[in-house]
Amino acid sequence: MLGLGLIGGSILRAAAGAGREVFGYNRSVEGAQGATSAGYDASTDLTATLARAAETQALIVLAVPMPALPNMLAHIRESAPDCPLTDVTSVKLAVLDEVVAAGLQARFVGGHPMTGTAHSGWAAGHGGLFNRAPWVISVDDHVDPDVWVMVMTLALDCGAVVVPAKSDEHDAAAAAISHLPHLLAEALAVTAAEVPLAFALAAGSFRDATRVAGTAPDLVRAMCESNTSQLVPVTDTVIDLLTRARESLACNGSVADLVDAGHAARVRYESFPRSDIITVTIGAERWREQLAAAGRAGGVIRSALPSLDTRR
Amino acid sequence: MLGLGLIGGSILRAAAGAGREVFGYNRSVEGAQGATSAGYDASTDLTATLARAAETQALIVLAVPMPALPNMLAHIRESAPDCPLTDVTSVKLAVLDEVVAAGLQARFVGGHPMTGTAHSGWAAGHGGLFNRAPWVISVDDHVDPDVWVMVMTLALDCGAVVVPAKSDEHDAAAAAISHLPHLLAEALAVTAAEVPLAFALAAGSFRDATRVAGTAPDLVRAMCESNTSQLVPVTDTVIDLLTRARESLACNGSVADLVDAGHAARVRYESFPRSDIITVTIGAERWREQLAAAGRAGGVIRSALPSLDTRR
Repeated sequence: MLGLGLIGGSILRAAAGAGREVFGYNRSVEGAQGATSAGYDASTDLTATLARAAETQALIVLAVPMPALPNMLAHIRESAPDCPLTDVTSVKLAVLDEVVAAGLQARFVGGHPMTGTAHSGWAAGHGGLFNRAPWVISVDDHVDPDVWVMVMTLALDCGAVVVPAKSDEHDAAAAAISHLPHLLAEALAVTAAEVPLAFALAAGSFRDATRVAGTAPDLVRAMCESNTSQLVPVTDTVIDLLTRARESLACNGSVADLVDAGHAARVRYESFPRSDIITVTIGAERWREQLAAAGRAGGVIRSALPSLDTRR
Repeated sequence: MLGLGLIGGSILRAAAGAGREVFGYNRSVEGAQGATSAGYDASTDLTATLARAAETQALIVLAVPMPALPNMLAHIRESAPDCPLTDVTSVKLAVLDEVVAAGLQARFVGGHPMTGTAHSGWAAGHGGLFNRAPWVISVDDHVDPDVWVMVMTLALDCGAVVVPAKSDEHDAAAAAISHLPHLLAEALAVTAAEVPLAFALAAGSFRDATRVAGTAPDLVRAMCESNTSQLVPVTDTVIDLLTRARESLACNGSVADLVDAGHAARVRYESFPRSDIITVTIGAERWREQLAAAGRAGGVIRSALPSLDTRR
């Protein structure tokens, strides 16, 4: 586990709790000490940690912030280039680009546990963070079935449900359901701050609507700015919807179009069908395309799928 | 209590629970029967209810939807024109206009308990709905101190904290913290619905951000469309902020300006100072202006203020 912040630290706890052998590295002494004093196997020595990973052919989990990624990949390339590799970053194509640039794509399968980001650091984490949370695992054309099984098993061991998705589709969805909501929350907080009585009257709906604006600015920037190509078009869609609603309100006194469409969309979301993916064999012909299609339709993996290797 | 929906029905329960004599009217048999079978005093006979109110000089609480207001005010004008009168509607100037048009402003003090609106109807209500919630009471130039005391006492009996505010300032704040968040939630839901994988991956932050899009469309329209003059400018502000962030992201790959400002605003909101208003005497010289200024500064009334009448 490289990085013991909210996500990395929570995976360390959850994986250890599931009985796995797991060891971690953290750049700051604070995070590593937090982990060791809680009884976990953690270090601030990157070289030693990577040597140990290479020796045991451990699955390496990149849980560092996006800006720290290129440097970390260079170290892995140097010391543990054959280890299976995954990550937990919120933008999948940007990470894949970095991995390809480091020449490490052969053993890489991207991942993204979809959990909260309002707090950060080792202390904010806990072993139950991934319980029933969606954990996206990439099914891009290049991914290796054996590594895919390892990442799937880790996610399931942490209590998550696995959603298979192609990296570009993940990023488009993340822009709509995560990055854009951050921008809306920021814009709403700024707007309300300018109205004298607003904070005095603010209650539940404003608190909920601006909650993610409490996230550390550099985390929000890292997410949004590494997903520019997907975030710009959905931002345009929202601006267009709001502009048309504003015109309709000012000219005809009606917001019916937006409100009816928004309510219908929310109702569809509430009744979005979830199903279990059970019929795909990992490594079989067209297994990646089958998983991508199943994920798009709302399918999730709740218990380990068979793979060609384990059947032999 | 005229109207036994979420708000009216909850006030009926809370006021009765506080030991007050309270009786209600509801247009639909369903709501009235829900109340009577729970042991409350409710009826579908508007004429009889208003006659009883006039006889006992009861404080009448308008808890009907905005579109039903003119007709209801005409009945009150006919049958109980001298009763003290308040309301619980989310837009205060629009209600005041209707009350003035009906010639009932002398005994009217507007009110607005700031509570959730995602559900509606008698069954959705409960007596604890107003516990520690802000309940705005208007301090416009015309308001009568005796009626103001009655409305304040009702709100406190229901467990709310009272925020005094002028109607136009309330409406500007409500546009920023309530009506605009509804439009943003609707626009976000519509945008995400168009992205194939979005609903499959949606987790906590999307669910929170679109929660109020689940509100019945006619309730949202009634709020937004009766507050056009305040909602249009804050919608413009949000569109402008998003447009500038979009340009900055597309051209410079940065959303720093919006994210930094949004985070700062949210932090200010979290540490917004709340204080108790204790030094104002209702009915004393400039009492309305003093309360409006105290409310603007974050002051709330947690226990009944003295009034000139009770001191005599």
